Amino acid sequence: MGRGAEGATSPASYRHWTAEHVRFADLDPLGHVNNNAFGVYFEQGRVGFARESRLLEGRPGIGTVLARFAADYLAELGHPAGIAVGTRILSVGRSSFVFGQGVFAGERCFAVAESVTVLFDLATRRPVALDPAQRRLLEAWMESFSGAR
Amino acid sequence: MGRGAEGATSPASYRHWTAEHVRFADLDPLGHVNNNAFGVYFEQGRVGFARESRLLEGRPGIGTVLARFAADYLAELGHPAGIAVGTRILSVGRSSFVFGQGVFAGERCFAVAESVTVLFDLATRRPVALDPAQRRLLEAWMESFSGAR
Amino acid sequence: MGRGAEGATSPASYRHWTAEHVRFADLDPLGHVNNNAFGVYFEQGRVGFARESRLLEGRPGIGTVLARFAADYLAELGHPAGIAVGTRILSVGRSSFVFGQGVFAGERCFAVAESVTVLFDLATRRPVALDPAQRRLLEAWMESFSGAR
Amino acid sequence: MGRGAEGATSPASYRHWTAEHVRFADLDPLGHVNNNAFGVYFEQGRVGFARESRLLEGRPGIGTVLARFAADYLAELGHPAGIAVGTRILSVGRSSFVFGQGVFAGERCFAVAESVTVLFDLATRRPVALDPAQRRLLEAWMESFSGAR
Repeated sequence: MGRGAEGATSPASYRHWTAEHVRFADLDPLGHVNNNAFGVYFEQGRVGFARESRLLEGRPGIGTVLARFAADYLAELGHPAGIAVGTRILSVGRSSFVFGQGVFAGERCFAVAESVTVLFDLATRRPVALDPAQRRLLEAWMESFSGAR
Repeated sequence: MGRGAEGATSPASYRHWTAEHVRFADLDPLGHVNNNAFGVYFEQGRVGFARESRLLEGRPGIGTVLARFAADYLAELGHPAGIAVGTRILSVGRSSFVFGQGVFAGERCFAVAESVTVLFDLATRRPVALDPAQRRLLEAWMESFSGAR
Repeated sequence: MGRGAEGATSPASYRHWTAEHVRFADLDPLGHVNNNAFGVYFEQGRVGFARESRLLEGRPGIGTVLARFAADYLAELGHPAGIAVGTRILSVGRSSFVFGQGVFAGERCFAVAESVTVLFDLATRRPVALDPAQRRLLEAWMESFSGAR
Repeated sequence: MGRGAEGATSPASYRHWTAEHVRFADLDPLGHVNNNAFGVYFEQGRVGFARESRLLEGRPGIGTVLARFAADYLAELGHPAGIAVGTRILSVGRSSFVFGQGVFAGERCFAVAESVTVLFDLATRRPVALDPAQRRLLEAWMESFSGAR
């Protein structure tokens, strides 16, 4: 059990940010944010990245699905709280790539996650290769991260 | 990226089962069960195991929290569908233990997960050690699995 | 404030039933089923009715949306619990109809709801009239209820 | 079927506001915000009102529960969207009061709701009377609304 990839718990490691806040509905009977609500925060960060980076533009009928998700929960989070989801690209494959993410309140990291994400044909329901423009886009985000360290 | 621990995708690996079904509300805009709904199925299996095994009996004020969760999503799942969540114990530590789980429809495995679960004092909000009875209980479940192979 | 339409809290008033159970994830920090989880139970009953009655068969590209939803919460519900959602048709209009529903555990009613549901063209995103077959189907369900009293 | 209490669809009717935004997870397979996600927005507004008005201060062990909820859904809402939940007090009873609310994006109203809310003893799980300070607080919020028209 670790804390995700190198630098995962440091805000300085992320260049893409999504503003969120804890909803009362994110709490479970233990009075803290449930792990599946953290899952929603991470999803919101990935969806925000895809939209703002224009990753899927020019590829109608193509979406993304999760193949693997792994998260470390580092501290309890309560309500109300303003949070920010940091998102970066950790690696790029043929038809998949890996998101690295962290949920922060201020400088403090409450959870980190890695998500293996597969490009997916919505008609055939099968994986499909990243095209050269998508690969360049993801590699540029990946490098910008490395340069930032 | 793997498929979880050995035997994780085989129903024969599990001795504790929780019946579930897909709700319409578990679907996302892609028309399939969202990964966070799978997270709810896995939670339902862990909660069912804890209740039916009486893991927390005799320890008032003690609950469990997730420290780490890792899942592989193997196939799309739609609505309606009857499913079953298989749950086993993969390892036992001092104040934590690891659940291994699978979501099945019939013999087919749609997702597997491992969850590092920490015994937790609900007043101090700090980890607390498993007592000898809890350790024996979890080890008995772990061995019953090994014997079943 | 009332208890819905006549007979709403009596299981004898319903002919269509959907089996459900409370999930741990349906609980909120007060330790009981949150009102929005009841909303999911009611939705599951409406979706089950639409599928099993074949209401939308022969009308591709047509779905249903909620125009109005009103629920009375009569008693707290906990976890675990097996429940059943009873569904009936209270009235039929030109492009809409009204569901009456109740959530029961055994004979006891925990919540009732009425849902004004509109037939909806998924391409134009506009209401569309019920066709004669749909009207007959809904009226038959409505009458079967009256006859049952 | 109506549009709630007088002025319910006008932003000018509300003095308490809660900022929200649509999450991807709020969407259902029809690609729009599900009615139960609207239910979460309304809940977030009520919880924000209770906290910011200090309605429950000085009354330990007392919470609120919903007895009745009625909503009109006026237009489809998509993702992403910034929204605001307006909240007012429509009436005050002995142990209950009625929230009136609207969900807005800009000036446009997407849904309105009325929620009969009961003061509730978390130990006995029974309704309990509003004390004089709570009554004054709620009546002041109710009057401030009337004055604003």
